[in-house]
Amino acid sequence: MEQESRLAGTVRPGGRTAKVRAAVLTATQDELVERGFHGLSMDQVAARAGVGKTTVYRRWGTPSGLVADLMNELADESSPHADTGTVEGDLRANALSVLQAVTDPRLGATFQAVIAAATCDEEAAKALRAFYGRRVEEWAKAVDRAVGRGELPPGTDAKEVIRAVSAPLYYRLLVTREPVTAEAAERSALRALAAARAGAFAEGA
Amino acid sequence: MEQESRLAGTVRPGGRTAKVRAAVLTATQDELVERGFHGLSMDQVAARAGVGKTTVYRRWGTPSGLVADLMNELADESSPHADTGTVEGDLRANALSVLQAVTDPRLGATFQAVIAAATCDEEAAKALRAFYGRRVEEWAKAVDRAVGRGELPPGTDAKEVIRAVSAPLYYRLLVTREPVTAEAAERSALRALAAARAGAFAEGA
Repeated sequence: MEQESRLAGTVRPGGRTAKVRAAVLTATQDELVERGFHGLSMDQVAARAGVGKTTVYRRWGTPSGLVADLMNELADESSPHADTGTVEGDLRANALSVLQAVTDPRLGATFQAVIAAATCDEEAAKALRAFYGRRVEEWAKAVDRAVGRGELPPGTDAKEVIRAVSAPLYYRLLVTREPVTAEAAERSALRALAAARAGAFAEGA
Repeated sequence: MEQESRLAGTVRPGGRTAKVRAAVLTATQDELVERGFHGLSMDQVAARAGVGKTTVYRRWGTPSGLVADLMNELADESSPHADTGTVEGDLRANALSVLQAVTDPRLGATFQAVIAAATCDEEAAKALRAFYGRRVEEWAKAVDRAVGRGELPPGTDAKEVIRAVSAPLYYRLLVTREPVTAEAAERSALRALAAARAGAFAEGA
């Protein structure tokens, strides 16, 4: 019984623990989008979620704890890698999924808030690292399959190819503050692919 | 006389206006590094610079105005593009200059603070766009020369090649929060070069 109660959030997805978590994470994301990480307050999240403050403090501890759990949930929700049959199709799909995420008003604002927080908060940085670690690993499978099919040279660093597809889009979004367009996404996928085909992502390259 | 006085900061670099500006920008950078953009206060910058508050408010207006002028100064100070004789040498030099900037404790923290600010402040975003616009344009000259020497295909988009060299390093720094190493810089230069040689940066590619 004790074990069942402790795991209630996982074994009964519709249970009270799961409902509280869903409400708190939705409120956390709302607050992040509206106020940014610096404006994120445990009390305000509790009020917005309709949950007791004590529960929020006990379960998540700090604003960084809320952000870490939110990023974990977003990673759970995010789509698996594409399987279009060609590496070109899969890398384009990856670039488009990044484009969609960063240009989605709610999701894009959430990422930007967490990325900003991570520049000065180690817990937020850790949450970000975990999120992108999972995303890169998931999409790297498409590149590994392409190597298996002989579309890319043996020894190609699959994770690095995926990072190379995403990097120019985040660079525009965050650093040069230039528009992130479908054209930019398309080109990013094709350039990473050209370099991969040339062996620039292979071991010892 | 009126014109001379108005331009005092530019025509007499050692003059009082220039000294005030240097002190205020140094204090702005100190405060950014220590407190981040959200902690940047006009009064604190004035006190730290040993300059009257009225001067700071009249000349820079807002914290964003201070950041914009600081980024302008950093662009002025940053080194011109390399001219090693080969595109490979020049792109490696570019990657290393990015590496040095982002791993320099003071400069790296400054960029991270302004990048974080730009996610929620349009003036900071504008300052960032202007800074990187100038840097990309400066280094693009090296790629244009490589096209002229026949090292890269005609029609190669020089600015996009430079963005492609920098992007993976900022992506690691800001998004996946992975270490930005000399090896990552080297690889980034060689991968952009491989894609450029394959024609993936040429018009219509």
